[in-house]
Amino acid sequence: MFVLITYDVATSSEGGVKRLRKVAKKCLDHGQRVQNSVFECVCDATTLAQLKIDLREIIDEEHDSLRFYILGKNYRNKIEHYGIKDSYNVEGTLMF
Amino acid sequence: MFVLITYDVATSSEGGVKRLRKVAKKCLDHGQRVQNSVFECVCDATTLAQLKIDLREIIDEEHDSLRFYILGKNYRNKIEHYGIKDSYNVEGTLMF
Repeated sequence: MFVLITYDVATSSEGGVKRLRKVAKKCLDHGQRVQNSVFECVCDATTLAQLKIDLREIIDEEHDSLRFYILGKNYRNKIEHYGIKDSYNVEGTLMF
Repeated sequence: MFVLITYDVATSSEGGVKRLRKVAKKCLDHGQRVQNSVFECVCDATTLAQLKIDLREIIDEEHDSLRFYILGKNYRNKIEHYGIKDSYNVEGTLMF
């Protein structure tokens, strides 16, 4: 299942910069960054449930905002990109 | 149909700050801001097509990134939010 994760972390609040880094790192464990605070993940329901728990533990719900958008399995024709960093196959093999 | 619009505008590039402001303003004409560069819109296909044209004319495709995610009609159970600025009914009546 394809999930889009977007977040705003209040870097001006105490510990905000550290939270921002940790949120990005946790999202990178499961997906690919497509914009500064926008990540695309393909994962199963169990992994997503755990990722939500992990991310909620990192953010400060008084200051930060975290959103999940579930696009499901047939997501490829639901996404359009214009500009730099063209889209890529989030399920494609990563070449290192 | 529900559409999520996310963007990264290179404010460090020439005219970037102005582009950022114009992109946000154009998105506000059609939807609601849920995070700094994340907007939720409910619109028909014709309006979306025009919005894409308008936004592509604003951004600099050499420096900026603009993404559209189509969640369709049954979107309410596909969105989860944690933290500040709780979600709202994007089709709800706006109270001024």
